Amino acid sequence: MSMSTQMNQLGVVKRGIVRADRAVVQQLSRFGVATIHEAMGRVGLMQPYMRPIYAGARLCGSAVTVLLHPGDNWMMHVAAEQLQSGDVVVAAVTSENADGFFGDLLATSFRARGAVGLVIDGGVRDVRDLTAMNFPVFSRAVHAKGTIKATLGSVNIPVVCAGALVNPGDVVIADDDGVVVVPAAIAQQVADAAAAREANESGKRAKLAAGVLGLDMYNMREPLEKAGLRYID
Amino acid sequence: MSMSTQMNQLGVVKRGIVRADRAVVQQLSRFGVATIHEAMGRVGLMQPYMRPIYAGARLCGSAVTVLLHPGDNWMMHVAAEQLQSGDVVVAAVTSENADGFFGDLLATSFRARGAVGLVIDGGVRDVRDLTAMNFPVFSRAVHAKGTIKATLGSVNIPVVCAGALVNPGDVVIADDDGVVVVPAAIAQQVADAAAAREANESGKRAKLAAGVLGLDMYNMREPLEKAGLRYID
Amino acid sequence: MSMSTQMNQLGVVKRGIVRADRAVVQQLSRFGVATIHEAMGRVGLMQPYMRPIYAGARLCGSAVTVLLHPGDNWMMHVAAEQLQSGDVVVAAVTSENADGFFGDLLATSFRARGAVGLVIDGGVRDVRDLTAMNFPVFSRAVHAKGTIKATLGSVNIPVVCAGALVNPGDVVIADDDGVVVVPAAIAQQVADAAAAREANESGKRAKLAAGVLGLDMYNMREPLEKAGLRYID
Amino acid sequence: MSMSTQMNQLGVVKRGIVRADRAVVQQLSRFGVATIHEAMGRVGLMQPYMRPIYAGARLCGSAVTVLLHPGDNWMMHVAAEQLQSGDVVVAAVTSENADGFFGDLLATSFRARGAVGLVIDGGVRDVRDLTAMNFPVFSRAVHAKGTIKATLGSVNIPVVCAGALVNPGDVVIADDDGVVVVPAAIAQQVADAAAAREANESGKRAKLAAGVLGLDMYNMREPLEKAGLRYID
Amino acid sequence: MSMSTQMNQLGVVKRGIVRADRAVVQQLSRFGVATIHEAMGRVGLMQPYMRPIYAGARLCGSAVTVLLHPGDNWMMHVAAEQLQSGDVVVAAVTSENADGFFGDLLATSFRARGAVGLVIDGGVRDVRDLTAMNFPVFSRAVHAKGTIKATLGSVNIPVVCAGALVNPGDVVIADDDGVVVVPAAIAQQVADAAAAREANESGKRAKLAAGVLGLDMYNMREPLEKAGLRYID
Amino acid sequence: MSMSTQMNQLGVVKRGIVRADRAVVQQLSRFGVATIHEAMGRVGLMQPYMRPIYAGARLCGSAVTVLLHPGDNWMMHVAAEQLQSGDVVVAAVTSENADGFFGDLLATSFRARGAVGLVIDGGVRDVRDLTAMNFPVFSRAVHAKGTIKATLGSVNIPVVCAGALVNPGDVVIADDDGVVVVPAAIAQQVADAAAAREANESGKRAKLAAGVLGLDMYNMREPLEKAGLRYID
Repeated sequence: MSMSTQMNQLGVVKRGIVRADRAVVQQLSRFGVATIHEAMGRVGLMQPYMRPIYAGARLCGSAVTVLLHPGDNWMMHVAAEQLQSGDVVVAAVTSENADGFFGDLLATSFRARGAVGLVIDGGVRDVRDLTAMNFPVFSRAVHAKGTIKATLGSVNIPVVCAGALVNPGDVVIADDDGVVVVPAAIAQQVADAAAAREANESGKRAKLAAGVLGLDMYNMREPLEKAGLRYID
Repeated sequence: MSMSTQMNQLGVVKRGIVRADRAVVQQLSRFGVATIHEAMGRVGLMQPYMRPIYAGARLCGSAVTVLLHPGDNWMMHVAAEQLQSGDVVVAAVTSENADGFFGDLLATSFRARGAVGLVIDGGVRDVRDLTAMNFPVFSRAVHAKGTIKATLGSVNIPVVCAGALVNPGDVVIADDDGVVVVPAAIAQQVADAAAAREANESGKRAKLAAGVLGLDMYNMREPLEKAGLRYID
Repeated sequence: MSMSTQMNQLGVVKRGIVRADRAVVQQLSRFGVATIHEAMGRVGLMQPYMRPIYAGARLCGSAVTVLLHPGDNWMMHVAAEQLQSGDVVVAAVTSENADGFFGDLLATSFRARGAVGLVIDGGVRDVRDLTAMNFPVFSRAVHAKGTIKATLGSVNIPVVCAGALVNPGDVVIADDDGVVVVPAAIAQQVADAAAAREANESGKRAKLAAGVLGLDMYNMREPLEKAGLRYID
Repeated sequence: MSMSTQMNQLGVVKRGIVRADRAVVQQLSRFGVATIHEAMGRVGLMQPYMRPIYAGARLCGSAVTVLLHPGDNWMMHVAAEQLQSGDVVVAAVTSENADGFFGDLLATSFRARGAVGLVIDGGVRDVRDLTAMNFPVFSRAVHAKGTIKATLGSVNIPVVCAGALVNPGDVVIADDDGVVVVPAAIAQQVADAAAAREANESGKRAKLAAGVLGLDMYNMREPLEKAGLRYID
Repeated sequence: MSMSTQMNQLGVVKRGIVRADRAVVQQLSRFGVATIHEAMGRVGLMQPYMRPIYAGARLCGSAVTVLLHPGDNWMMHVAAEQLQSGDVVVAAVTSENADGFFGDLLATSFRARGAVGLVIDGGVRDVRDLTAMNFPVFSRAVHAKGTIKATLGSVNIPVVCAGALVNPGDVVIADDDGVVVVPAAIAQQVADAAAAREANESGKRAKLAAGVLGLDMYNMREPLEKAGLRYID
Repeated sequence: MSMSTQMNQLGVVKRGIVRADRAVVQQLSRFGVATIHEAMGRVGLMQPYMRPIYAGARLCGSAVTVLLHPGDNWMMHVAAEQLQSGDVVVAAVTSENADGFFGDLLATSFRARGAVGLVIDGGVRDVRDLTAMNFPVFSRAVHAKGTIKATLGSVNIPVVCAGALVNPGDVVIADDDGVVVVPAAIAQQVADAAAAREANESGKRAKLAAGVLGLDMYNMREPLEKAGLRYID
């Protein structure tokens, strides 16, 4: 059942999703968000307003997606049942809203079901408790505002969260630099490219630390001159 | 070639896209954005910061998608060649940017190739000329800032534009109320549902104009009382 | 029943509100928002993000207040029944939300019940129809997004709308410059002060048009010099 | 002297305000902002842009209100004289402004007079010093910009601060999740409701931690089915 | 007296400024903002939040600069005396503020002294009157909020307005696309470059209208291929 | 070569800039941003959206300026070669853009060349590494988004960064309260004024801590009374 053959996606829970391979998720967890997004060709990032609720928060896992309505977190409870060990809940909202859809009770439930964190294009609350639990959350806002349980959304349909398309089972990685989504089918390629990129960087870092200029290391002087760069005194 | 089997989507132009049926596009063009989005189950809207550059602008057509980089409109020229009569160009940018990616020269070219309008999650310029041309544009911003032509993006890949997923060939409708995207495969269903909805509304409008209350017309008094509504004096 | 003696304000409809005197509302309708807010001592303005949905929209009337939840317009229908001739509906939302709470059907109903316009700290839709109806609306946003009818809010309780406190029965005036709220009990004083202010301004306008400087007309040269203003060449 | 009987509220200092009962303030100080706002029926919150200047800041006290003009902090000095032990200063500004109205000197003065913190819909500065003093401030912004002392505002009138109505003497509680205002007259009711709510939550937390689903604990399965939720594979 | 030799720029009015040559201002008035900013090498634009208060507003003139404080328009009256025929007032504020610093009385005075318009990084009011007067204003906001006259700013010092450096005497051009600043000393060069650019564009427009692609007209096919663009079906 | 005699500033690197005197930079480094901006007469601040990437970040040095294009960090490498011990890189962008122009590799290079920090009106990434390196950065945003190296900007021309004019060689100081720019030519005057101001403040702090009111210490009672302040009970 794809998005293109079914008109109304609301009120649907997809159970049998295919998760990214666990070994690849493990590999990707070793890289930073900036490295992974570069390895993908500079795509897949969520917008930079998505921030961790505490310094140093970090997560990597397979996406269980949720589509919420503004002011309504009913589907978060439906999502809880679909969680497996290593999952990251990715919650989108049908219109911009910063209400506190998530707090320490849901975090307790999600963790008990195996979830390793939450990415939500909305607000969260109980930030002190979530921090004490060391439960990583990346969100649009922190807001004490409570929500109702009245309207159906969906679980495990493709969603757009903070500007990024997320399919259930995709790998989601988040750290201080933001949130990136890696489609499950290319996760291994991306992990390999990230590893190559990182290997390449450590040599550069040593040179730059020794005072070598990027101008020389990257051979930029000639293209800069061709582009017309002028030095004046 | 789907998004899931190919790592790097940048630098790709897909030529043979399947457009929504022309007759259905014609049917959808008769409805407003609000009606269509309701008929779809309240999904498919772009974010409300997308505004027409002149009052009364309106468009309906089949999407040719473009992915741009901030400050770079090279791919708009590549997209022009892919246009057919009745197309709407939908341009996304890899990060938030309000530069003027589009002006009267590109509008002249797009129109010559058959395009009926532009939806862009970025800035446009030459607004006076575009208005005189009656070329409808819905954009994030108006900005005179020029762009360069240096980096490859893509044409006719799936893009996220102003929070909505757009596949090439989808029907895009925009009016004073915003922009909505109808997947090609459900376009006929949506057109039918919109027609039914609109037929239904005209009777309601007459009753309300005569002073009948929504409370009575929609039978809300009982559910409101059950929910606990209290009247005081 | 005041805000201070009753814990839960939600789910309440106050019927017997006291409206500002009709003659005073009439007097206030002759002044601009800027003049009235000056006459009140520079208070009472809503925030400047509140904009008319069409150029030249203007309203003045007695407030019927509504408190909505994000994504839910149920209480708008409850409010319709409380409307009398000359009323302005003032709608606040319990958290920031731009959904389209209001469109042409509700406008038809509100007008049939006597309302002269709407001020809403949320979104509206059917803007083309509302403009054709000449139904003035001042709102935070235009957005096609539909809303549900699931949760109780209240009607005719004090609300904070776009940063201004509005009590039911207060006079609300809106024009191109924004929205101002005049408490019913001081409406006559404010109307008198506005009249005095306006009388005073026409003489000034003539002088300034003749080239007289504000520096001289307002006797500013001495205080400027005392404050230390220096002229240099 | 109420807001409705006096036109010009500017230039007024009310001395004999009635503060919320000290014992109730003490009770409320034990609950989080999210719990208290739920206990009140989900009202009373300030907007979520109000953030603590340092992680872990927290305050609870009786409000002394101040109305400031943009760029002018004269009234903060007037307010200092009105402070008693346990007070929280709540400062509103007549239009949006992020200037640094408050710094370590005023904090020293406020603390010497008994204040336990500040909530301000404007900017503050000397953040390093305020943090070292452990003086909790919740503000719209941090900004070094200095202010003048030229225009009268008022002290202890009702103000709208970050979207919430605050009367002098109301209880104001702020923590990582935001800021909530409890009217003095219902403070005891709210404290009782908060206590009941919290007692109720600890049992739930244990069940959820054991893997019980909210779906079952809250008996959601039947209403979800009635609403039309479909499970697919 | 330059910015670098004098510590306190506040409280200064410079009288003998050198205005851009009138003939050059006349030449620049024939070009759009987008064209002029391109002719300058894509610099000199103010930020795109600066918008005309009515559709079709347009201005071109020599800058008289004003530095204001938030909520205080005293210096606008001081500036009026310095105006000559053809001047544009450019007003900056020492911190972000949307108060209504300017209305129809000041417009009457400015026009009587020869000014052709206003560019202000703040708010304006009396928009209906200004529109009726056909007095062009480009501003950050429209806001009825009144201002005081209490603090010294300066007139005819260099200011940063909406992100652009403006020196007194610079040419300021504004239209639907935004606001651009041309330093007086290069105004002739810029006018010449703009004329050349515009001559060049009309030929392009005709070709594009005839269906010629930018890909061919600008010889982009080879660089696109070199950059790696792939066409797929 | 001044801004006023040369049309195109792009593609220029000025080598022989005059830096503020090292001893004065040292003196200024002892004061907070709020104190320095007050000592300058309340000017010179960048906008408050410029925030440190880690709590407690602080820098003071002589400016090397860079003008970047959105999404392009080529000039950062050009700037690296111009750095001397004690320099602060100040980077402006020709239009609003939050891409990650700077990360740990560039920080390694900048530090190796002597730089003590970065102020950038754009985004940065590798925040965890930069924090571990204790490399202070003040930026508009944190964003993992990578940039290209395709378009010439300039180094050591005057730039407007976050609303403040910065000339190469100016002293830039940043701490928790924001970022301030001191023109090199008045740096000594400002340092002296800051020292005087700080000396003055410690006496005040002691008095305020002892409970003396600002009303008395600053002799405000009489001017407040003259302005019309009324005390009521």
